Amino acid sequence: MNVLIVYAHPEPKSLNGSLKAFTVQHLENAGHCVQVSDLYAMQWKTTLDADDSEKRRDASFFHPSLDSQYAFDNGWQSPDIVREQEKLLWADAVILQFPLWWFSMPAIMKGWVDRVYAYGFAYGVGEHSDTRWGDRYGEGRMAGKRAMLMVTTGGWDSHYGPRGINGPIEDILFPIQHGILYYPGFDVLPPFLVYRTSRVDDARYTSIREELGQRLDDLWTTEPIPFRKQNGGDYKIPEMTLRPDIAPELVGFAVHKALHRD
Amino acid sequence: MNVLIVYAHPEPKSLNGSLKAFTVQHLENAGHCVQVSDLYAMQWKTTLDADDSEKRRDASFFHPSLDSQYAFDNGWQSPDIVREQEKLLWADAVILQFPLWWFSMPAIMKGWVDRVYAYGFAYGVGEHSDTRWGDRYGEGRMAGKRAMLMVTTGGWDSHYGPRGINGPIEDILFPIQHGILYYPGFDVLPPFLVYRTSRVDDARYTSIREELGQRLDDLWTTEPIPFRKQNGGDYKIPEMTLRPDIAPELVGFAVHKALHRD
Repeated sequence: MNVLIVYAHPEPKSLNGSLKAFTVQHLENAGHCVQVSDLYAMQWKTTLDADDSEKRRDASFFHPSLDSQYAFDNGWQSPDIVREQEKLLWADAVILQFPLWWFSMPAIMKGWVDRVYAYGFAYGVGEHSDTRWGDRYGEGRMAGKRAMLMVTTGGWDSHYGPRGINGPIEDILFPIQHGILYYPGFDVLPPFLVYRTSRVDDARYTSIREELGQRLDDLWTTEPIPFRKQNGGDYKIPEMTLRPDIAPELVGFAVHKALHRD
Repeated sequence: MNVLIVYAHPEPKSLNGSLKAFTVQHLENAGHCVQVSDLYAMQWKTTLDADDSEKRRDASFFHPSLDSQYAFDNGWQSPDIVREQEKLLWADAVILQFPLWWFSMPAIMKGWVDRVYAYGFAYGVGEHSDTRWGDRYGEGRMAGKRAMLMVTTGGWDSHYGPRGINGPIEDILFPIQHGILYYPGFDVLPPFLVYRTSRVDDARYTSIREELGQRLDDLWTTEPIPFRKQNGGDYKIPEMTLRPDIAPELVGFAVHKALHRD
């Protein structure tokens, strides 16, 4: 199978750098083809702007989504964006690997999403009408592919627990797992997490690698997070709210997982 | 009073551009001093990397937080970072204004946070021991200052409601409001939100401006979001979990607001 790793850490000799190298090796040993978008090494252009199109729709007014659509439709996207889109289309599975900085991804990876996720490619796909709000959340160009986050944090496990001060890690990652990965159609696997990175000795590093190796072996069989499909009948359209008869007592991120259906 | 607006939109003639201009004018008319960090106009360097220090701690290994600490402590931070830190220290209130892209801030603003929020400035402040985990979440260098988000979205209000498909807006913004603003000590005001930006006609634009003007008039009196202080007795340290006797039935972001105390 084909695996794309999108990786954002500025230091190759870091824990993240080691885990990235391990991941590539482990997947290749298992016979998979691997491509890495090492954003720092590529000096990825982080900021979405008018230079992302080779030709402008209207040189006097830059509209982030309309200009993106125009460039995508007419083949005028910047070549670095096209290359990343081709990697995504090539991949059967995509891993986004990054250290958690300020409870989100580093800016360079956010800039990868902002720029590569073009209108017509990752959003604005499919019919948009009063009864259909496009192919997204479970449908879209990435449907049939799998995605997984690999995230490291300085804070402890308990700080990210259900009542931890930072908020539960699954909620902190919801805008990424649901909003960035599930949105264009990926099946999203539970994240691979490493907490308290300042305290990784040899013994812990060995066990982290073993656990990661197992997750990579299971990449094709792990049960995805059961997010609800937008167009599967669970949501009212166009309000896009969960049907009142489904989990009527619940609100928040958790209602968008089907476990809470009964 | 002194107000800093950190603003991220690539098009001055956009709705965001108009609302930024309105905000500056309105605050100045009320006698306040306003500075704007217009990140696109400044061509803000978005990516945190080794070039953010004028002198390296160890040229063979870049460690994002230790290098940040070293540069901050020794006066070796890049001048663009120092200028933004000085603006933050000058400000009595800070407004972060941006369009919601992929359920978070544009990369250029994330890069402002990643780079300006240095170790020793916005984190790693105060005593760190078994009984005290620094001055953060309600304490820190920004204590006594107010902060507010101004956010625009293409999606509808209902899509961001309690059972809306994108998740509730207050939860989507929690990593920013709690994790980026409350963390270094800001009192965080409820956000100013504009939904469905593709449908803003003259009448709606007028009412948006009126509502925004009122929020700006109330900047010094609006009740902040009642996030719980880390060191106020509500959390177990060092686990950093909410005390078991407080709102024992609750989990998730909501437990960190004191409304749920009783």
